[in-house]
Formats: sequence, C-alpha cells, structure tokens
Amino acid sequence: MENSKLAKAPNKTPQIVVLRWGHRPQRDVRLTTHVALTARAMCASGFILADVEDTNIARTVMRICDHWGGTFRFEMGIPWKRAVHEWRTKEGVVVHLTAYGENIQTSNVLDKIKKTKKDVMVLVGSQKVPGNFYSSDVSDFNVAVGNQPHSECAALAVFLDRFFGGEEFSRDFPGAKMRIVPKSRGKEIRNPSEIELNG
Amino acid sequence: MENSKLAKAPNKTPQIVVLRWGHRPQRDVRLTTHVALTARAMCASGFILADVEDTNIARTVMRICDHWGGTFRFEMGIPWKRAVHEWRTKEGVVVHLTAYGENIQTSNVLDKIKKTKKDVMVLVGSQKVPGNFYSSDVSDFNVAVGNQPHSECAALAVFLDRFFGGEEFSRDFPGAKMRIVPKSRGKEIRNPSEIELNG
Repeated sequence: MENSKLAKAPNKTPQIVVLRWGHRPQRDVRLTTHVALTARAMCASGFILADVEDTNIARTVMRICDHWGGTFRFEMGIPWKRAVHEWRTKEGVVVHLTAYGENIQTSNVLDKIKKTKKDVMVLVGSQKVPGNFYSSDVSDFNVAVGNQPHSECAALAVFLDRFFGGEEFSRDFPGAKMRIVPKSRGKEIRNPSEIELNG
Repeated sequence: MENSKLAKAPNKTPQIVVLRWGHRPQRDVRLTTHVALTARAMCASGFILADVEDTNIARTVMRICDHWGGTFRFEMGIPWKRAVHEWRTKEGVVVHLTAYGENIQTSNVLDKIKKTKKDVMVLVGSQKVPGNFYSSDVSDFNVAVGNQPHSECAALAVFLDRFFGGEEFSRDFPGAKMRIVPKSRGKEIRNPSEIELNG
C-alpha cells in the first residue's frame, strides 16, 4: 500500500459475477432462482446461467429487477468454458465454492482473494462438478463455506456477506419502483418518491 | 453485566432451532432440504418441519447426520403454533426472518437478540406467512437479511453466520464417519481415525 503505484490504484470495490453451472431446467428451477436472487440482493453485478437457457428463471429475475431496482445483469446459455476463459483473459479471478476447499473461517483464503483487488467470478455448482473445476485450469481459489455438505445458496450468501463486509445490505438499488421500509412489526412498502416526501 | 446475578449466568452459547413454516411436500422438497442442511452445517441444534411430514427430507437429513456426525435433531409434523408456544413457555425468543423486518446490517436488532442470551427459534417461511408472524403474538423480533426479496436459505445462512460469529465453521461434528480435509486443490475425504493417525 505504501508505494506510489498502488496508491494510484482506483479505490473501487471489486465486482462479483456468479456463474451457475450444471442447472437442470426442471429439477433446479427454484434453487437456481434463489441463487440468482441472492446474487442480486447481495450486490453481485450479474449472474450467468451457463450452458442452458431457462426462460422461467429469466422472467422471475427480470421482474424482480424491474420492480426492485438495481443494475443486475442476467445472462444465460453461455458455455461455461467460454465465460471462464473470457473472465480470466480480462484478469478477473475465479472462485469455486465447494465444501472441499479452503475453509473461509479457519484459513486466510478470503484475505488472499481480497488482496488481489480483482473482480471475482464465483462458480456455483448444482450437480457434481467436473474435476477440473478444482484445478488451476479453471479456478484460482477453491473456497469452502464450511467443510460440511449443505447448500450452494447458503454458501454464496455467506461468501458475499463476508466479501462485501455487510455493506451489501445497506446499498441503494437505483430505479426501484418499490422499496421496503424496515420495521420491527408489520409490513410496509412504498415507492421511493413517497419515502423522500414523507421520510 | 455488572450485577452479580448476571455474572453468575452460565457462559454458554445460546442454541438455535429452525422452524420451517409452509412447506409444500412436492414443490418445496429441495429448498426445504437445503434449509435443513444449512441449519445443521451452521450449528443450529435442530430443525422442525412444521405441520406436515415429508419422509424424503427426513431421510436425506438423517443420512447426512449419520455420515457427517453431530447431534442435530430433526422433527416434523408438529403444529407450528404448538412449537412456538412451547418455545416461548421455556423462555426462548422467536426470530422471524422476513425482508420486511429490521435490517440486520443497519439496525441493532442482532445485538438486541444476542443480549437476551436466550435460545432462539428462527422462523423461516416458504409461502406467504400468516400476518400474526409479524406480531408479538408469535415473534419477538422480525429480522431482515437485507430488505430485498431473495431466498430464505440465504437469509438463514447469513443470520447463523453473524449470530455465531463465524465459529460455526470451525466446530467439530462428533461421531462423524467421514470428514473433509480442506484443500486449496482437489478433494480429500478421510474417516476421523485416519485424520488423527496421519495428521
């Protein structure tokens, strides 16, 4: 951090894009939708549904983006190899979330990722992933959100929360047509202009 | 914290039980399974599938517990009203996870929950929940893991990670038949006796 070269580096938060691998259109539609909505709500910049198209998921995600704002990008049908190759060509790092990886709590893997200061593609599998996901051909880091079997949706959420240091839950979603007013009791939704007028 | 009464309180980590409300056996089987496995992997003590029975989920969770260890309790078919009533009778607090609640990042709601030092039942909805979930008839706290729509599985994961302060990922699961050896590359599973012998 001391030298002038690093001091000049733009002080922006790296962006995260989530790539969902192995989606099976019938079987995984709800889980993949949850993964995509988690990515959006927790301030990932975009989501790639690799290799397949699923218009049900696209419709749901687009509707949420339209109502609730933000600049989330949703793409589908891109071959995973191409998406990963293009990401690495642009000098982004690739993080594979897997229960077999370095433990996010007991190792320094998150620090190592953050220190790169690079944009991150997070690979989230559905079925058993190809063996080369674990190798340097595909991933720069294999990260375990705990070394127990659980849920790729849960793993992604914890990874994003720790990566963004919690700030993802206080960010604004520009262009929202509706916004929740947080309350200890009951439900309140307003449109943003009402909130500005009435506080 | 100053008075002698509080100083004598046992210094144990409060326990968490997750209650899944509104599960629909066909539609929600995979998501509810993910919620239950997240609860187990992130050191909740137990999981209640309220009102309905689903042997598919029970079988999966029991199999994971058998292989991967721990003392996780799985129950199903208990009416949610009875489960909540019994919990509150035992002086546990009830936390309802909802996008409408107090924001876990921008409010002090998590501190308030922790300061009770009580065991916590976390209510996780599937369908739209009954209106009284938001009222003091049912919940002590309504907590939003962000005020955007996303996933109950993601919300539970972030809540547990913050509640346990990350320690849930370094805890031991007694009685495990297999354990992952965290690695930066590849996959390694051993049984616990092998790990003790070979380090």
